[in-house]
Amino acid sequence: MAKRLSEIAALVEGMVLGGYDPEIAGVSNIEDAGPRDITFAVPPHLDKAAASKAAAVIVPGDIAAYPKPAIRVANPRVAFTKVLELFTPPTVVSRGVHPTAVVGRGVRLGSNVAVMAHAVVADDAAIGDNTVLYPHTYVGEAATIGGDSILYPGVTVYAGCRLGERTIVHSGAVIGSDGFGFVTIEGRHHKVPQVGNVIIEDDVEIGANVTVDRATTGSTVVRRGTKIDNLVHLAHNVVIGENCFLVAFTGIAGSTKVGNNVIFAGQSGAVGHITIGDNCIFAGKSGAAGDVPPNSFYAGFPARPHKEWLRAEAAARRLPDLMKQVQALEKRLAALEKQGK
Amino acid sequence: MAKRLSEIAALVEGMVLGGYDPEIAGVSNIEDAGPRDITFAVPPHLDKAAASKAAAVIVPGDIAAYPKPAIRVANPRVAFTKVLELFTPPTVVSRGVHPTAVVGRGVRLGSNVAVMAHAVVADDAAIGDNTVLYPHTYVGEAATIGGDSILYPGVTVYAGCRLGERTIVHSGAVIGSDGFGFVTIEGRHHKVPQVGNVIIEDDVEIGANVTVDRATTGSTVVRRGTKIDNLVHLAHNVVIGENCFLVAFTGIAGSTKVGNNVIFAGQSGAVGHITIGDNCIFAGKSGAAGDVPPNSFYAGFPARPHKEWLRAEAAARRLPDLMKQVQALEKRLAALEKQGK
Amino acid sequence: MAKRLSEIAALVEGMVLGGYDPEIAGVSNIEDAGPRDITFAVPPHLDKAAASKAAAVIVPGDIAAYPKPAIRVANPRVAFTKVLELFTPPTVVSRGVHPTAVVGRGVRLGSNVAVMAHAVVADDAAIGDNTVLYPHTYVGEAATIGGDSILYPGVTVYAGCRLGERTIVHSGAVIGSDGFGFVTIEGRHHKVPQVGNVIIEDDVEIGANVTVDRATTGSTVVRRGTKIDNLVHLAHNVVIGENCFLVAFTGIAGSTKVGNNVIFAGQSGAVGHITIGDNCIFAGKSGAAGDVPPNSFYAGFPARPHKEWLRAEAAARRLPDLMKQVQALEKRLAALEKQGK
Repeated sequence: MAKRLSEIAALVEGMVLGGYDPEIAGVSNIEDAGPRDITFAVPPHLDKAAASKAAAVIVPGDIAAYPKPAIRVANPRVAFTKVLELFTPPTVVSRGVHPTAVVGRGVRLGSNVAVMAHAVVADDAAIGDNTVLYPHTYVGEAATIGGDSILYPGVTVYAGCRLGERTIVHSGAVIGSDGFGFVTIEGRHHKVPQVGNVIIEDDVEIGANVTVDRATTGSTVVRRGTKIDNLVHLAHNVVIGENCFLVAFTGIAGSTKVGNNVIFAGQSGAVGHITIGDNCIFAGKSGAAGDVPPNSFYAGFPARPHKEWLRAEAAARRLPDLMKQVQALEKRLAALEKQGK
Repeated sequence: MAKRLSEIAALVEGMVLGGYDPEIAGVSNIEDAGPRDITFAVPPHLDKAAASKAAAVIVPGDIAAYPKPAIRVANPRVAFTKVLELFTPPTVVSRGVHPTAVVGRGVRLGSNVAVMAHAVVADDAAIGDNTVLYPHTYVGEAATIGGDSILYPGVTVYAGCRLGERTIVHSGAVIGSDGFGFVTIEGRHHKVPQVGNVIIEDDVEIGANVTVDRATTGSTVVRRGTKIDNLVHLAHNVVIGENCFLVAFTGIAGSTKVGNNVIFAGQSGAVGHITIGDNCIFAGKSGAAGDVPPNSFYAGFPARPHKEWLRAEAAARRLPDLMKQVQALEKRLAALEKQGK
Repeated sequence: MAKRLSEIAALVEGMVLGGYDPEIAGVSNIEDAGPRDITFAVPPHLDKAAASKAAAVIVPGDIAAYPKPAIRVANPRVAFTKVLELFTPPTVVSRGVHPTAVVGRGVRLGSNVAVMAHAVVADDAAIGDNTVLYPHTYVGEAATIGGDSILYPGVTVYAGCRLGERTIVHSGAVIGSDGFGFVTIEGRHHKVPQVGNVIIEDDVEIGANVTVDRATTGSTVVRRGTKIDNLVHLAHNVVIGENCFLVAFTGIAGSTKVGNNVIFAGQSGAVGHITIGDNCIFAGKSGAAGDVPPNSFYAGFPARPHKEWLRAEAAARRLPDLMKQVQALEKRLAALEKQGK
């Protein structure tokens, strides 16, 4: 497939810069772009893109002139996403139930589903229309998977859990394992039955090897539009709001409630039984140790306002100097004291 | 199923408070409880439970009166666990070997086992009585799984590893992968064969996507009654004592020996080749970097006594103020010095 | 199998110490060694090994005399590795395609491969000579696995990814899941298609439950000889150089380039879009937050030179004392000021 630059400009609602209308055969990042590819660039990468092998570049709307054929758009990243979709042939998946798949009694399969080799769907589960279960997926008893969803190879959904429409779950993710709940009697830990479930709402994406534990009673919930990176852990009875980002290695402890549009950066987390307001951002490696008000930008552990953390970090770096300064004061003071006698 | 409150009180060895004996049909947390449910509450949640929709509440023994029908018991959490068990129908699993399961030569299967769809049991492995292998589990050559155990979908046990009685292993856990051992010769890393195994003793629970590496020689060991949360990593030749709690993202490096009743909170860890005494607690995100004596409560990295860590954290927060204070002293001292001349 | 000590000495190019030539039947660590085993010891473990039950000990070349039969070699750890290989019977794996395995159309299988029970190889994939796919492995469409490689049970390789020769991938590892890329428009996150792949070069070992995301465009790359421990995460478009060590829970964010011979210790990481030079070492729990020059030893977060970090840590521990010192200065200064009036 190839498209004229002007055709691509029309698709992304952009304007062609320069007098050429080259044919574009692919899409790539700046480093890997070949002479028939289009790429995109925002500052500070505009010069690098200009010097690349790419045939054309998608650039921001305030660029008046550019040394290469270019498309000027309001948001180059959004335009690049559209062009990626244009050049990416949709993955074709054979529909139907593979002969090696095992489908239990009372299972409701929607139309146009794919249940691929060695997938297992337990009794009374339900799979929505157009949903794809890759090989080695497991959907437990009475679990439900919404329509237009993809479970990649080796995803496990325990009994009774519910996933929404257009969910994407990557390989090795585990939805609905038991919460970590025990009562300790005379030094021995006895399991508290975990009889709740997990509810994943619509348009959620869950990364590889993520774990989401089922609730003790009630539900662990991930609300619509939230995106979860690889190797994240959500404990029992956690509630994550809408449109959040949870980056790799984030861990949220039991019963914590997270608002909407919250970002946890990599290797961050929150202790259990706290409430985190809407629009909060937690820096990498931070750990929330108490309730956090909406619109906070927190860092460190225990997490505190980022500005405060920066100031403390800067002070800590000047600490060896401060010590020397205090030693010097000490000497000068001793000299004065001696003099005063 | 429904039970009178007085019947439940008898089960949990508690005393009914208030003149009513309502019928209870379910059990739930405070937020989700409906008008036929029982819940439990300890301070500071007693008022919240009293205002909930629950039909009745399990409360501590020192509560004399309560606005709702209640059961007074010594330990409400333990009583709640018993009531959860009462109302949770046991999961019924078809016994026997599913026709799609693959069972090798020389395998010993106990009585009443379930080897579910697409499970694989390699040659010479042994599975104890009443044990359940969910779909996509893999039990390697000559590995042994004790009786009354559950391996959830997608658990992998490598060759030669041994799990005790009543072990529960959640999906995606990997028991017995090679330890991370290499010798570096002229900048290239050569694999050290990892010929030991893993021994998991009785009554251990292992969370989803946990990894426990096999020993170089000898065994990596988790002793009886220890509970391991999701996404924990135990390296080769680690020994974890009895009745420990290892919370999510804990990492214990090679050859470290951990005593009994030790708690590692989330995102904590220990370097290799150290010894950690009984009854230690490691705070979230802490990292033990040397031997730790028994009964220690440690925090930070490198981990140190929690009180010391708290003191240092508090001091660090006052550091910007300290800097101002030193500047002020400096000025006053300079003034005095000038005056003295 | 049993060997004379002198035979083992010849194999490891060492010299027998002491007048005996005992028969050795096995190899073990110091603690577990029995009376027919050989072990190895370097300082400070020489006395412990001498007091062990072992029949013989491999010791460093500068040891002149030893209380037990011993072999003196330049590098005892390397010699021990050779002896481990000598005494470890190679794992025998049935070759061929198991009747329950599912192999797609257009798949190229090399000679002497093993495709074990319930493995799935999708259309147009290629598996090199002598490679072993354990049960429940998944090799996606048009993916290629080099020769002499091992994919342990439950490994997933997404479509189009390429693994080199002599790669070892442990259970639960996921190669090629989608990168975590979204564009946010009016508060909603839209998926950026991830159309690149993952390239793993020769002689790489990947631990259990590791995740390596496919590139947005182009490739996420792990270069030859690098060894990756369990539960590590590499984001889209990351490049890891040759002969690196990435220890458990290391996370490298998107597009970061890591040089050769770099070591990331446990629970460490790097933010996205930075460059890390050759021969760097990152201490446990550290986090690189900007470019790092070659040959750096960094610690802390944000990561800084280890010496600087040590100095700051030491200063932080003296901080409560410093505060007292400043209080004392304050008092003495006030006294002087009063006196001066």
